[in-house]
Amino acid sequence: MIAEILSIGTELLMGQIANTDAQYISRRLGELGINIYRHSTVGDNPERVREALAESISRSDIVITTGGLGPTEDDLTKEMVAEHFGLEMYLHQPSLDALTERLTRMGREMTPNNKKQAMMPVGARVMPNLCGTAPGAIVEGNGKAVAILPGPPREMQDMFERQLVPYLEGRAGVRIDSRFLHVCGIGESKLETILIDLFHSENPTLALYCSAGEVTARLSARVADGEESAKLLDPLENEIRARAGRAVYGEGRNLTLAAAVVNALIEKNITIACAESLTGGMLASRIVDVPGASAILNEAYVTYSNEAKMRLLGVSEDTLRNYGAVSAQCAKEMAEGARRAANSDCAISTTGIAGPDGGTPEKPVGLVYVGIATPDGCEAVELHLRGDRRWVRELTCVNAFNELRLRMNL
Amino acid sequence: MIAEILSIGTELLMGQIANTDAQYISRRLGELGINIYRHSTVGDNPERVREALAESISRSDIVITTGGLGPTEDDLTKEMVAEHFGLEMYLHQPSLDALTERLTRMGREMTPNNKKQAMMPVGARVMPNLCGTAPGAIVEGNGKAVAILPGPPREMQDMFERQLVPYLEGRAGVRIDSRFLHVCGIGESKLETILIDLFHSENPTLALYCSAGEVTARLSARVADGEESAKLLDPLENEIRARAGRAVYGEGRNLTLAAAVVNALIEKNITIACAESLTGGMLASRIVDVPGASAILNEAYVTYSNEAKMRLLGVSEDTLRNYGAVSAQCAKEMAEGARRAANSDCAISTTGIAGPDGGTPEKPVGLVYVGIATPDGCEAVELHLRGDRRWVRELTCVNAFNELRLRMNL
Repeated sequence: MIAEILSIGTELLMGQIANTDAQYISRRLGELGINIYRHSTVGDNPERVREALAESISRSDIVITTGGLGPTEDDLTKEMVAEHFGLEMYLHQPSLDALTERLTRMGREMTPNNKKQAMMPVGARVMPNLCGTAPGAIVEGNGKAVAILPGPPREMQDMFERQLVPYLEGRAGVRIDSRFLHVCGIGESKLETILIDLFHSENPTLALYCSAGEVTARLSARVADGEESAKLLDPLENEIRARAGRAVYGEGRNLTLAAAVVNALIEKNITIACAESLTGGMLASRIVDVPGASAILNEAYVTYSNEAKMRLLGVSEDTLRNYGAVSAQCAKEMAEGARRAANSDCAISTTGIAGPDGGTPEKPVGLVYVGIATPDGCEAVELHLRGDRRWVRELTCVNAFNELRLRMNL
Repeated sequence: MIAEILSIGTELLMGQIANTDAQYISRRLGELGINIYRHSTVGDNPERVREALAESISRSDIVITTGGLGPTEDDLTKEMVAEHFGLEMYLHQPSLDALTERLTRMGREMTPNNKKQAMMPVGARVMPNLCGTAPGAIVEGNGKAVAILPGPPREMQDMFERQLVPYLEGRAGVRIDSRFLHVCGIGESKLETILIDLFHSENPTLALYCSAGEVTARLSARVADGEESAKLLDPLENEIRARAGRAVYGEGRNLTLAAAVVNALIEKNITIACAESLTGGMLASRIVDVPGASAILNEAYVTYSNEAKMRLLGVSEDTLRNYGAVSAQCAKEMAEGARRAANSDCAISTTGIAGPDGGTPEKPVGLVYVGIATPDGCEAVELHLRGDRRWVRELTCVNAFNELRLRMNL
């Protein structure tokens, strides 16, 4: 089955927002085993939507549109799809009822414009919008299908997952189950080499996605209705875990390293403190991102100046004089000092040179030390990172969480 | 002049990355007064590139491609453009020399694959890549033009700005000068209302872009070569400043509120401290994002627990008992305590309920207090924010910086 994405919206064409909808849908179609050959974006203009729609339909089995479902005259996706298939529009009463109820709940009046959102092509399968006002639809004709989704990412994703995925699986006559294994501490090309023979399998399939300092392996099995995917996925997962070892830190579509670490700390009731120099609060902020973090993070220190490192964390003047603030010794004393001051079970510290200035031949930009203090003692790890200021700080956070995970067996 | 963007790369089509290149180029073309009617994305596949290229060229005056300039066989943008215009490829010696020099500097060998990156269509205007290995090109034919840019955003943007913009301006026979005014404290729709009549002008033009808690106004003037744009832009800028007042916090394409505040603090030699509860380090991290921040930020505290608020910041037990941690009183004591403990000129604090849990009828999710301590005293601002955990924290940071800016006249 071949799919195309047609994004409709002048705000995309003008670059006011990035097309993250297209990215999300593409990724999910890949997981579902559906081939995708093209993305197109056009503005809210009837002629250009008409033209792009006809082209996309001619090239593929299913076209997924996003956007153009709002209440204004500019919003014309449904109308253009109806026109393409020669269908009339009618008022879809359940959509109107849902819309009326929603607007009433928000204390707003139904306007003729809003009513437009409940108009549907005759014969469309309507997809209610559980997160917003504009319902979507699936329209079939001439052996092809157009799935019409709203533009706002939260609404689009909810409708895609709950309503479009079952349709796509039904149409393809198969179900694709996917698992996501998250890996940190082995780079993408190294991981690819280790797993090279596993990429040749046609079912289940394996794909790697990389982000800052991490790699996600997607394992997808294609099964017939009622069949179990576990017998295909279990052996592959076991094989990857055996080869990548402790670098695999968890499973789940949306898992992040910070969430894996924080959730493990919460589960084991281990409290943590942070002492940050170059990351400057980013590490603590990543922890606080995870709901429930207040149970394990009491406090964190951003100690940029030497004076603050001494006063708040008890880093010794000798250390700063003899080794400097960017040193393994200082990182260790920062972590140990934070653990002591916060009276926590463990602590992580960061110190380094994020750039763009401040580097020297002995201590170049990208030289970073991460300190880890646990009940068993204190260690520091030396890192040589490349990239701009923000990237060096990002990678430092990832490395700090990963070192903590490995040392605390989280 | 009508333009289209053609993005080439399987990683885009598979959703491994979002198409931020298309967003960047679209936005810049808008600023340059060039109309853009479509974005298309295809994978690294000769047939589909060939087809999409022909379509894009037929519809527009100039096609801007990104991607497909790498050293592998899959990378075929230049070859497809040459084929379209019936041009041979030849080895462009200056590109080969630059490539050799770059690889040597990085301690790598020149391979036959790399050599491919120096091949160019005959007659192309070559655009050297000042940030990477793959040079770009502009190819003209039949009154149309194709501009070939690399895919990595940093390389693309540098080439676009330094080399393609002058070409586009020359081709259009005009120059577009833009200014960017940044506004915080007035929402987008309010600002639109205040400035409504100014949007009708055809030259200069005015457009608004919004991001978390902020709005950017773009003022663009179209002028002939050698003409001054200031006489068009100055009156418009003055008018906007007069109407929006102190909500205008600065000027410049890439200015951020955090950078404006930090740079003003650096310039005035004012030191700052942070005491963060719900933002959990995000505020300090935004400050540290700005190069040179170490001159004005000595330290920051993430005080999540009541105990930490008392011990590190001297918040009184009575305050926590009588008003709670989420209160104006607590925010004030946190800011004042941070200012005192860090011995800084000013301090900002945040406390609130970011959600998803923890809200009550009296103190719902989104209730936030920001405290500002200055040499003139201490105040707290109550905010009622909407959105998910991350968004509430983002908006809190924006509000905190803005309150500081207004109170300190930064």
